[in-house]
Amino acid sequence: MLKNDLFLRALKRQPCSRTPIWVMRQAGRYLPEYRAIREKTDFLTLCKTPELAMEVTIQPVELMGVDAAIIFSDILVVNEAMGMDVEIIETKGIKLTPPIRSQADINRLIIPEVQDKLGYVLDAIRLTKKVLDNRVPLIGFSGAAWTLFTYAVEGGGSKNYAFAKKMMYREPKMAHMLLSKISAVISEYVCAQVEAGADAIQIFDSWASALSEDDYREFALPYIKENVQAVKAKYPDVPVIVFSKDCNTILSEIADTGCDAVGLGWGIDIKKARTILGDRVCLQGNMDPTVLYGTPEKIKAEAAKVLRQFGQHTAQSGHVFNLGHGILPDVDPANLKLLVEFVKEESAKYH
Amino acid sequence: MLKNDLFLRALKRQPCSRTPIWVMRQAGRYLPEYRAIREKTDFLTLCKTPELAMEVTIQPVELMGVDAAIIFSDILVVNEAMGMDVEIIETKGIKLTPPIRSQADINRLIIPEVQDKLGYVLDAIRLTKKVLDNRVPLIGFSGAAWTLFTYAVEGGGSKNYAFAKKMMYREPKMAHMLLSKISAVISEYVCAQVEAGADAIQIFDSWASALSEDDYREFALPYIKENVQAVKAKYPDVPVIVFSKDCNTILSEIADTGCDAVGLGWGIDIKKARTILGDRVCLQGNMDPTVLYGTPEKIKAEAAKVLRQFGQHTAQSGHVFNLGHGILPDVDPANLKLLVEFVKEESAKYH
Repeated sequence: MLKNDLFLRALKRQPCSRTPIWVMRQAGRYLPEYRAIREKTDFLTLCKTPELAMEVTIQPVELMGVDAAIIFSDILVVNEAMGMDVEIIETKGIKLTPPIRSQADINRLIIPEVQDKLGYVLDAIRLTKKVLDNRVPLIGFSGAAWTLFTYAVEGGGSKNYAFAKKMMYREPKMAHMLLSKISAVISEYVCAQVEAGADAIQIFDSWASALSEDDYREFALPYIKENVQAVKAKYPDVPVIVFSKDCNTILSEIADTGCDAVGLGWGIDIKKARTILGDRVCLQGNMDPTVLYGTPEKIKAEAAKVLRQFGQHTAQSGHVFNLGHGILPDVDPANLKLLVEFVKEESAKYH
Repeated sequence: MLKNDLFLRALKRQPCSRTPIWVMRQAGRYLPEYRAIREKTDFLTLCKTPELAMEVTIQPVELMGVDAAIIFSDILVVNEAMGMDVEIIETKGIKLTPPIRSQADINRLIIPEVQDKLGYVLDAIRLTKKVLDNRVPLIGFSGAAWTLFTYAVEGGGSKNYAFAKKMMYREPKMAHMLLSKISAVISEYVCAQVEAGADAIQIFDSWASALSEDDYREFALPYIKENVQAVKAKYPDVPVIVFSKDCNTILSEIADTGCDAVGLGWGIDIKKARTILGDRVCLQGNMDPTVLYGTPEKIKAEAAKVLRQFGQHTAQSGHVFNLGHGILPDVDPANLKLLVEFVKEESAKYH
């Protein structure tokens, strides 16, 4: 049914003619076409207006030729749906009020009806699927519980996660109660996204690397596993990608959540990751996003290196080319276009 | 000659009766005694006034009972000595002017006479050694070339290192020219610190984890090796610690610089690091600094875990207990004191 299903085939580790590519934050500020829409509307309104969210979701498919679309939204819509007031000033910072720091604060958070409180995301997915007309798959996503927990407890972004860690270390039961509550919403939310038409799900654990291995095992991984298993129980054919950025020492345990793909930051050579994980999951990544500041020759050389480091494909292997984190707002779109075209061409030799 | 030489013995992997402990930023804002001095003087003036630098350097030795002192200073004194204007507002941010972005900018930077431009650090070391009166060893330090390069090129702190990476990817020769110039000063500077009395040297590569493995191999490691070898050539008995925070995938290559100890962030279980490195270097680290926000029981449990994870000592092993990064300014000093006392007592069972 999909005209280009390479992305899903790679996630399922089925034979592909070449490596598919999409990039995190591909619907974003680096595109003048995105900025034109943002001039007329603020960030959260854009997330909440399905027609506009659909439009910016499809922009990189049409303008850049990526092999997958990802629904335009923000991980913090989950916090908002649970009853927090969320302010996002895209260039400046994030504020959530009130910060969640006591049992009473946790009790006040609701477990919302996803169809009700996050219906606008589901509407945007349905509309995008329709307009995409099966050109490429559509990715749904959520932040992971630990990352959303840090925003809730800190009341915004954070350097050292002081309040989040204080709760974990002084009131671990309370921390788990909040994490469980968030995780329950995430599970419902990602399943509802699949129901609305999302072809794959990515769980973003952006602040994963702030935790020690054991803290990650206690406060992050079990919830990710819960979310992955929630999707798998209802939709066994829908691939799930877990992106626990820079958790390079516990890749194997991330794969053990039952996900189909492990997303990598650029801190590890993808060859090493493949050596550790074998071909039991697909790997997604992992070029340094700042390489897109480089010359065309440098961009091609670095992309070629990622493909070469991943190496030859087998009947069980899967690789989705991506950056190791989001594309930066001041990148020249021509450089992304060049990357996409180069990866499409160059990767064929490894398949 | 030293009354307590455990820190140096651990770095040299000689038998110790227990594990020595110091913590990064131990002379700092969490101590009311430090804040009392800072109320009367700004940060850089404190660095440049040997009597005051000596006083805050010794505070944690007397108040906390740590097994080593580290000279109070800042990594950016090297940038300043090379001709940049450096402003440090401890709670707000760092500004270096002008940012170094062209060949002409690089040419204008000087390779200073360390005795002249950084004489105040050497004076502070001499004075501190005298007043310490051999109670514990004194650590000298420098930022690594890559980290100082990012400050120079960005003109301050940075989130994505856009300008630094642009130079690396578009003008790699120019980047290497700047890195070489900085590295030459670092080598002179750390040797001068030893000459003035420093008993060990630590190289801080604070922003190490912003680089891919290959970029780290090209733009960071060779300069660290140059600095380590500069010390070793002149002072073979003086231990050098390399702290390339969160470079957990290339620990073995860090050890190959010829350093005596590898500093670890808290992102890797120290047992894994020891498995990778064997006992060919001492390991320094690696408790999450935010554990000091925890209850006394939690602090002891986590410290005990680091010691247990490191495991039993052999005739060739070395472990210096430390946090995985600097102690945070809002930590209760009583919690550090508790940690120091606990590590001293608990660690004996592993020796």
